[in-house]
Amino acid sequence: MTDKIKVAILGATGMIGQRFVQLLEDHPYFEFGGFYASERSEGKTLGEVLKIRDHRFKEETLEMKIELLETERVAASSRVAFSGLPSDTAKDIESELARTGLAVFSNAGAHRMSPDVPLLIPEVNAEHIEAVKGQTSFDNGGFIVTNANCSTTGIALPLKALHEAYGLDLVTVSTYQALSGAGYPGVPSMDILGNVIPYIGGEEEKMETEIKKMLGKWNGGFEFADFSMFANCARVPVLDGHLESMVLKFRETPDSDELIRTLESFRGLPGEFRLPTAPIHPLIVRKERDRPQPALDAFAGDPERARGMAVTVGRVRRSGDYFKMFCLSHNTLRGGAGGSVLNAELAKVKGLI
Amino acid sequence: MTDKIKVAILGATGMIGQRFVQLLEDHPYFEFGGFYASERSEGKTLGEVLKIRDHRFKEETLEMKIELLETERVAASSRVAFSGLPSDTAKDIESELARTGLAVFSNAGAHRMSPDVPLLIPEVNAEHIEAVKGQTSFDNGGFIVTNANCSTTGIALPLKALHEAYGLDLVTVSTYQALSGAGYPGVPSMDILGNVIPYIGGEEEKMETEIKKMLGKWNGGFEFADFSMFANCARVPVLDGHLESMVLKFRETPDSDELIRTLESFRGLPGEFRLPTAPIHPLIVRKERDRPQPALDAFAGDPERARGMAVTVGRVRRSGDYFKMFCLSHNTLRGGAGGSVLNAELAKVKGLI
Amino acid sequence: MTDKIKVAILGATGMIGQRFVQLLEDHPYFEFGGFYASERSEGKTLGEVLKIRDHRFKEETLEMKIELLETERVAASSRVAFSGLPSDTAKDIESELARTGLAVFSNAGAHRMSPDVPLLIPEVNAEHIEAVKGQTSFDNGGFIVTNANCSTTGIALPLKALHEAYGLDLVTVSTYQALSGAGYPGVPSMDILGNVIPYIGGEEEKMETEIKKMLGKWNGGFEFADFSMFANCARVPVLDGHLESMVLKFRETPDSDELIRTLESFRGLPGEFRLPTAPIHPLIVRKERDRPQPALDAFAGDPERARGMAVTVGRVRRSGDYFKMFCLSHNTLRGGAGGSVLNAELAKVKGLI
Amino acid sequence: MTDKIKVAILGATGMIGQRFVQLLEDHPYFEFGGFYASERSEGKTLGEVLKIRDHRFKEETLEMKIELLETERVAASSRVAFSGLPSDTAKDIESELARTGLAVFSNAGAHRMSPDVPLLIPEVNAEHIEAVKGQTSFDNGGFIVTNANCSTTGIALPLKALHEAYGLDLVTVSTYQALSGAGYPGVPSMDILGNVIPYIGGEEEKMETEIKKMLGKWNGGFEFADFSMFANCARVPVLDGHLESMVLKFRETPDSDELIRTLESFRGLPGEFRLPTAPIHPLIVRKERDRPQPALDAFAGDPERARGMAVTVGRVRRSGDYFKMFCLSHNTLRGGAGGSVLNAELAKVKGLI
Repeated sequence: MTDKIKVAILGATGMIGQRFVQLLEDHPYFEFGGFYASERSEGKTLGEVLKIRDHRFKEETLEMKIELLETERVAASSRVAFSGLPSDTAKDIESELARTGLAVFSNAGAHRMSPDVPLLIPEVNAEHIEAVKGQTSFDNGGFIVTNANCSTTGIALPLKALHEAYGLDLVTVSTYQALSGAGYPGVPSMDILGNVIPYIGGEEEKMETEIKKMLGKWNGGFEFADFSMFANCARVPVLDGHLESMVLKFRETPDSDELIRTLESFRGLPGEFRLPTAPIHPLIVRKERDRPQPALDAFAGDPERARGMAVTVGRVRRSGDYFKMFCLSHNTLRGGAGGSVLNAELAKVKGLI
Repeated sequence: MTDKIKVAILGATGMIGQRFVQLLEDHPYFEFGGFYASERSEGKTLGEVLKIRDHRFKEETLEMKIELLETERVAASSRVAFSGLPSDTAKDIESELARTGLAVFSNAGAHRMSPDVPLLIPEVNAEHIEAVKGQTSFDNGGFIVTNANCSTTGIALPLKALHEAYGLDLVTVSTYQALSGAGYPGVPSMDILGNVIPYIGGEEEKMETEIKKMLGKWNGGFEFADFSMFANCARVPVLDGHLESMVLKFRETPDSDELIRTLESFRGLPGEFRLPTAPIHPLIVRKERDRPQPALDAFAGDPERARGMAVTVGRVRRSGDYFKMFCLSHNTLRGGAGGSVLNAELAKVKGLI
Repeated sequence: MTDKIKVAILGATGMIGQRFVQLLEDHPYFEFGGFYASERSEGKTLGEVLKIRDHRFKEETLEMKIELLETERVAASSRVAFSGLPSDTAKDIESELARTGLAVFSNAGAHRMSPDVPLLIPEVNAEHIEAVKGQTSFDNGGFIVTNANCSTTGIALPLKALHEAYGLDLVTVSTYQALSGAGYPGVPSMDILGNVIPYIGGEEEKMETEIKKMLGKWNGGFEFADFSMFANCARVPVLDGHLESMVLKFRETPDSDELIRTLESFRGLPGEFRLPTAPIHPLIVRKERDRPQPALDAFAGDPERARGMAVTVGRVRRSGDYFKMFCLSHNTLRGGAGGSVLNAELAKVKGLI
Repeated sequence: MTDKIKVAILGATGMIGQRFVQLLEDHPYFEFGGFYASERSEGKTLGEVLKIRDHRFKEETLEMKIELLETERVAASSRVAFSGLPSDTAKDIESELARTGLAVFSNAGAHRMSPDVPLLIPEVNAEHIEAVKGQTSFDNGGFIVTNANCSTTGIALPLKALHEAYGLDLVTVSTYQALSGAGYPGVPSMDILGNVIPYIGGEEEKMETEIKKMLGKWNGGFEFADFSMFANCARVPVLDGHLESMVLKFRETPDSDELIRTLESFRGLPGEFRLPTAPIHPLIVRKERDRPQPALDAFAGDPERARGMAVTVGRVRRSGDYFKMFCLSHNTLRGGAGGSVLNAELAKVKGLI
């Protein structure tokens, strides 16, 4: 018996679900209550449906059985649910689980833009977590917190630092997104080998709306941030790590050195609280002329911890009143399962679970 | 004996030099006067230094010998020189050849921004060719015309159509550039396999300055166009075809359908004159949700001709007062050797050679 | 009205089905009777289910409707059926169609090893086509002819030439197989980017059995050729073109020059008969030290025709009593749809259809 | 002051040289005496010429200066030299250093086949190290030990186990070799993207001769092993890890289970001696149907150590009297720098340094 909080993994057969498993195998706050998925995988072990092959899971984890995803079953096993479900199935199941009293930390898009659901990145808008208290299920102890879309997450950290300091006026972003963002089996190899596909369904819309909710204020309701944002999204033949090109205009234009200092000194709550999955330095600014690169920087973090949880910024250049830069983050760690684990850690230190 | 104009290929051992050879093997206006390169390749046949292996050259072309690149030798053989030289060696040699009376059509960057040298794309700024008459060598029959940088060329055609119709205010571009743009051997495979490199030396500066010269006016001197332009350039693991993501703002905002019609109806002189290397429709607008793609659209052209000489535009979307779109062009054909061949064809019908 | 023979395309929504369409769009012997597939695609146009995007189909072809695959419907429309069906569904449908009187030319594996079905490559074992006369459906005009597995086809042509001349004793083969061999969507990009997968289900068994049927004799029954053959199959991140490494031992060991002459002088019936899809030189022997390569040689053929129908052999070296070499062929043209089209052309000139 | 032995890294600007640095940064037996290279890099820090970017070197290592490679300078600094030099420059320098009294552990090919130089893999032929005592420089304390070619190393471990147990009769090998085997910049990306190149200069000859020296006996002279071996080598677009396909015939044919047990129980001296860089299990036999794969198995080792030093064997199948299998090893660790570090560790426990 431990004091650890029991957690259910929803969608344990998918890429994000298994990243949750990877991050929670040895977690100081949480332990597995159960792995859940649809009928198709019921009764199989995690080892039999393994998608992530770049992590060495423990034998006991691989032997855990996938159970059928049903509200009561999950509720009986766990206080917390981490959801790696596809957005359409996530919608109702996550709501039901919250009503039943579970704290749901979701990577799905279904509830992200709901008026009482925090779209949360602890370094960016930790105070938004208060919104869960307005959810009808909260009296029962249940609530939903979502992490942002993977591409939005990567830019949200630097944009938070810069918006606070200088006020964003205009953001244009072009993405170079990795294959793992499309799940498994995902993009057919014949479509992407030696190619770029300039379309990812719904991605641009998510980026353009989610960022404004996250950079906005919580005053009992969400006030969205007010700036112009335009995104073009493309898939590239890269395994992990979304690279993003940005051109920015601010209300007050800093000089380059000052802007870089602002990025480098950015911390946020998770580092202060020493949350287990948080890097002390969530933003790494590289000075080399050709960084960040997915192959070199996707797994950036603190030297010995928080692998894949830092965002790397590079090629920061002022041009007239505009700034140009690139940023990079790991799309299934910082921009996926890692984001929701961090959210749950924040909820824990805030006494919500 | 034919009436064709003799042309010299400078830098015949390189990628661009050999694209010149490919495009000129069977040209109605031109025939080879000689292939030239440095001492290292002197005396070798083209076949012995072949870089381009995706084109089936004629046996007689492959057997032509590379000669030492010296002004008198080139001048003795040819009326026209096509230059695929690296920028640093191009500077003096091209000037000397012009002084000696040759018409030089250059892919090199050395003279592009000179105040009396046209930076020419016939569909975009055919009238700039008049500038050659102000070059000191012109009395002697010699002059220099340059084509634009490969990334600039791809956006110049759609931007010309749109600038003329609506007046550009702001252009932000992010590039997804192909490997062939770096010449041969170019990018080491270990650097780019499964990766993106967000840096190409000098490329962003070229894009930001060249476009304004080309979209500007020739009034005895060059008046640069006046709008804001910001470029972020990156290399992707793609063989041929530069994809570019653009966010645009105009002085007068059209609706989407009108803007698309403007692009589709764009023609320019080369199509009118039926220049041999020009596509009738230099801009192709694709309506599919996931085009243009390098693997599918790099070689776009007219059905049976001008392969790789059309620019493909896609994903045109209005968002508030801004427009988002992608465009794609073949970087060593339209954006390289093909551009200079087209320039020479214009010079021919204009009576300059 | 033409005299052309009506042909049905079975599995017109798949990669091989659409390669059949590509090869038959303008065929001198055949014209389309109909395109057939399962209920899922019934009523859609070919354009709506297009998989092959590297060929420019005619507008009228793209607008043809996919019909439901039912025996009577197919039989009513066509004399010949080209089958790009998956092996399990092919088994019964192809038999029924033959019984109904159709000549079936199949790329599926289902009937390849049947004792009365020719496993046919016209250059290799044209005489095997006689076997169809023993099929029970033949009185009715119906019969089945299959082409070989893609990897088997690539080695069958050179091995035929060499077996006939020197007698094969031992063949060891390792394959480097292209992605298109797995159909569409096929291999997930995350599995193969920067990787090699040393397993292709059933492939090695097919190679080891099919080759012996094809190099054997038809004497009213099939006598299999007698030599040792061992295959290891692997998938590589290449779009089209299976490369195969071979080490061979013969009963009589020739010298290298003689063996190369044997390969180069290999012709076979299709070239003699000038079958429309056959290259005059089915085997191309390259002398460069680093050929054949998929990116350069997959589409080898005669200069202006039979693109992707020649097999390229290279790096032929004798070492003791053994020979080492590589060979390469296009897996969905020569090794897929093109093989069956060639078989149908042979049947036509033989008066069987 | 420590008791560690001072070691010089020759060719510290190259891929192999820097793998040496990586493996020796924290070594229990060795410490850096100096980094050496040609004039071109003299005076630069390691950080300024960094090629390996997937390892986080210590700050103090990155700041070490590259010195000019001259015999006296190296000899003054170190007792041992690890050579990552190109074969042609290695030949004389390594000999001179040995004469001066240094123990040279070389990855270069120059001395591998010399009659008094051990071509050493400690698990395979540890007793060959005795040969150094016959080198003329040995009285002076100097000698040369080489590691094998990267492709030879990968097969040498399983072949040793099998040759000892069953006697090799015939080995045919086809390689799928990674890009890092060609050094840096190595293979141009345009040549290998979406392609396979069936040629690696000198590689097949090395494989066919080196293996017989290593599997042979040392009796005061080298007796080469006697079996037939044929190799075909190809480069594939993979970053690290050489995959090799083998077909084997033995003098005595075991059954499959027995052969697998022979591989799995293989140990060798380094594991017994607990040499720091050696895995306890140098051979890992995988039972999955699709392993080994470069992307998953290149860095195989013991759970927490000897990363990239184990060889993975998979798909072991008996077919008649032959066996088929694949094996995989990391080409710049086990097959490069790691091999020589292991050799030096053996020399240390043997009291030779």
